[in-house]
Amino acid sequence: MSAILSGATYPPTLTEEETTNLVIALRDWSLSHGLVIRAPTDTNAGDELSVHVPLTLHPSPFPKNLFDQARGLQTAFNALYAKVADDSEFLNGITEELAGVDEFMSDLWKLHLEVEEMTEGVPAQPLTLGLFRSDYLLHTTPTEEPSIRQVELNTISASFGGLSSLAADCHRFLSKSGLYGVATGSQLLNDETMPLNPAARGLAKGLGVAHDAYGVKGSIVLFVVQNLERNAFDQRWLEYYLLEDFGVVSVRASLEEIAESGELDPITKVLRYKGRQVAVVYYRAGYTPTDYTSPATWEARKKMELSKAIKCPSLATHFAGAKKVQQVLVDELVLAKFVPDANVRSQLKATFADILPLDVSDLGKKARKLIETCPEKYVLKPQREGGGNNVYRERIPGYLAELNDETLWRGYILMELIEPPRDVRNAIIRAGKVKEGNVISELGIFGCVLWDTVTHEIRQNFEAGWLLRTKFADSEEGGVAAGFGSIDSVLLI
Amino acid sequence: MSAILSGATYPPTLTEEETTNLVIALRDWSLSHGLVIRAPTDTNAGDELSVHVPLTLHPSPFPKNLFDQARGLQTAFNALYAKVADDSEFLNGITEELAGVDEFMSDLWKLHLEVEEMTEGVPAQPLTLGLFRSDYLLHTTPTEEPSIRQVELNTISASFGGLSSLAADCHRFLSKSGLYGVATGSQLLNDETMPLNPAARGLAKGLGVAHDAYGVKGSIVLFVVQNLERNAFDQRWLEYYLLEDFGVVSVRASLEEIAESGELDPITKVLRYKGRQVAVVYYRAGYTPTDYTSPATWEARKKMELSKAIKCPSLATHFAGAKKVQQVLVDELVLAKFVPDANVRSQLKATFADILPLDVSDLGKKARKLIETCPEKYVLKPQREGGGNNVYRERIPGYLAELNDETLWRGYILMELIEPPRDVRNAIIRAGKVKEGNVISELGIFGCVLWDTVTHEIRQNFEAGWLLRTKFADSEEGGVAAGFGSIDSVLLI
Repeated sequence: MSAILSGATYPPTLTEEETTNLVIALRDWSLSHGLVIRAPTDTNAGDELSVHVPLTLHPSPFPKNLFDQARGLQTAFNALYAKVADDSEFLNGITEELAGVDEFMSDLWKLHLEVEEMTEGVPAQPLTLGLFRSDYLLHTTPTEEPSIRQVELNTISASFGGLSSLAADCHRFLSKSGLYGVATGSQLLNDETMPLNPAARGLAKGLGVAHDAYGVKGSIVLFVVQNLERNAFDQRWLEYYLLEDFGVVSVRASLEEIAESGELDPITKVLRYKGRQVAVVYYRAGYTPTDYTSPATWEARKKMELSKAIKCPSLATHFAGAKKVQQVLVDELVLAKFVPDANVRSQLKATFADILPLDVSDLGKKARKLIETCPEKYVLKPQREGGGNNVYRERIPGYLAELNDETLWRGYILMELIEPPRDVRNAIIRAGKVKEGNVISELGIFGCVLWDTVTHEIRQNFEAGWLLRTKFADSEEGGVAAGFGSIDSVLLI
Repeated sequence: MSAILSGATYPPTLTEEETTNLVIALRDWSLSHGLVIRAPTDTNAGDELSVHVPLTLHPSPFPKNLFDQARGLQTAFNALYAKVADDSEFLNGITEELAGVDEFMSDLWKLHLEVEEMTEGVPAQPLTLGLFRSDYLLHTTPTEEPSIRQVELNTISASFGGLSSLAADCHRFLSKSGLYGVATGSQLLNDETMPLNPAARGLAKGLGVAHDAYGVKGSIVLFVVQNLERNAFDQRWLEYYLLEDFGVVSVRASLEEIAESGELDPITKVLRYKGRQVAVVYYRAGYTPTDYTSPATWEARKKMELSKAIKCPSLATHFAGAKKVQQVLVDELVLAKFVPDANVRSQLKATFADILPLDVSDLGKKARKLIETCPEKYVLKPQREGGGNNVYRERIPGYLAELNDETLWRGYILMELIEPPRDVRNAIIRAGKVKEGNVISELGIFGCVLWDTVTHEIRQNFEAGWLLRTKFADSEEGGVAAGFGSIDSVLLI
């Protein structure tokens, strides 16, 4: 294991011609199989062109025991966050700490409370669907074997399930074509070490079982999407499997379009979009303040929340994904409230990194001290969702100093930096161009959970595949859409 | 049937919004599923971008009895052209008529004779593979029910099998998504009227059984391809199914690359490309003179022809696809030589249009008279393969007049124009843009035949799916790659 993670024996050394052949095969396979994103708008192109998604040339090594561990934990994480989302009192406490520092998260919670009041605490739809993704990095020190550390748990718009399944298929194709120069079926590359990834169908199943639970034939799943979404094909794959496996039709619409053409029946609370009954609202937009371009878009979200449609996720579930929640759950006493089983609790806790608040509590004071003395061990993260806003290491003190008002600090958490192996090598292919280097991979495990927010009964709870994203070790942000990272697949070692 | 062919009841009338939704769904489905071609080089794009193939919005109606008739004839056509290819004496007669008028076809035959002499009539590889496509138009007159007329039979590089299967899947998806405004499972749109098209896997099976017959594990199929091939994905699908269904790896190379890196073992006659043994040479290039950019490319073709690899097709089989052969087979006596069974013969003949030579025979004299008196009923076609060179109707006399030397006329055949229904309506989507109009559809039936050119034993012979190509009724050339036509699927009526 360690030889592969050290980059000493993997990936295989290829000639320039072998690399070129691999890249061409990867590019054309991707374009043939929908492992694509829309072409950048800075080409002459319109919506009609696609380009392969940034992809690693080789599958990246990942220890099998840790991979199995992460997958094995997912249903417990699903249940935990479902419980958190159902606990208004707890989330009220969280929101008080965010008041005035993260307007967007506060607004979400305010809307939740407003809806709760309007429905007098009896929701039109007791069921909620979560399509979550729990993200992990390998953590290793000179003295310890690698372990997994949770980076975050996404409760809204967890993406790349569709493309992730294809990435595994692509690397398998390249292997079976003999292009890696390593025998297929060898100890290194075989069907066990390069597992099929069920993420696309798994997430579609989540939407499908929710649709079944809603119980109205011919009703649709409404995909709430951003207007200019280059990553549309990742979402399309869920639509295609939903139709293929469940016979369910999806319709895509932006918050603006729903504001205009979505209707809530005041009596039955049925949600209709352009006249069609909506069974499930699946948010692939609405997770970031910039998606709310007008008061009407907030009204659209409220309309959906008030409706009988099953939300994926509800406002409370969305809010439960706040980094602040993740930070608070690190406290054993808090975690015990939601996970009474000590054995399960210790399994979850084993993946938690140290997370500290930046408030005026004792922990907050400890955090301030750590930032002064050893900022190089930490990352500063805003509470709200969406990548690209983290502040790393020595830049933290200066960044905080620029926030005039110290109460704004409470909008952030301080997280111990995870130390992944830094000697793993791979190449990332972007628009047909190769770049080699040392890489870091982040494993995300998808989970589906359908539960009753009134009875707290869990109706469905399953793990639904995974995502491996890989970036160069010298780049700190790993968002694929943001242009920093790439999709990968696991090579289990 | 007639109501649909008249355009009176089909396709359904859609609002502008319904059409837009259909086009977006078609575009994204195509980009997700590899129903694509490379982006035009006049965008900023390089090889890394793809665009959906030009596609009809609706499946075009085709009479089920005629569709079944065409499919039912394919194995007989396969056997006929295999026999023609094996009859050197007959093809020698053909080539004499072409001498001096079609240099390319003459050169092919000369190379065939040279190889025959070098091998003393004992080919290194007795087996030959044909992946043919027989193309038909509907023919109808005010007094007659529609029938099918053969346009041509392609013996080399018959394309669009890969994308054709996907076109059927795409139209099915649009139907099942409810986007046609016609109920799926209705009498009009259902799984019987919109059949799955097995062309991609069928053609891959042809290559696979040839590879099996060659019998060397680990040997490859060599795809001979053009350098700048926008239609590469159509070919890629055969590669993917060949790997998936037969575990056989394909390698793509241009004639130039084979000239450089192809090796013929002088003793064993084994063909190697970059060191790898070639079981089957599959030509998706080499059908047009412009593919032969240097004497070395002709040498490459000779090297392959001399080898033990199974050719798809051999030079003789390539040559058997000459229009002149098609013209001569119209003669009952000639056809009887190859098809002794009178019943089969009459079935084949029923699809033949009148075809006349432009030589000095009695038929040639008749042709000259017809060109003078009623050119509007005819199309002039060059003997050689590849679309885009036909001369239609009143333009024929002027075109022939410009050929200074009347012996050049022998390079052409005069074919009775087939009169397809002209009131069928559809829309063609090209790079996401819609254009509606009256359309004409051409049905191609794929066939695979593997036979022994020495014993004349047929080892495999099967029909392998179909292609429907559709163009506007006011455009005379229908080549999809040439920018005139589109891929379609059949709606059986």
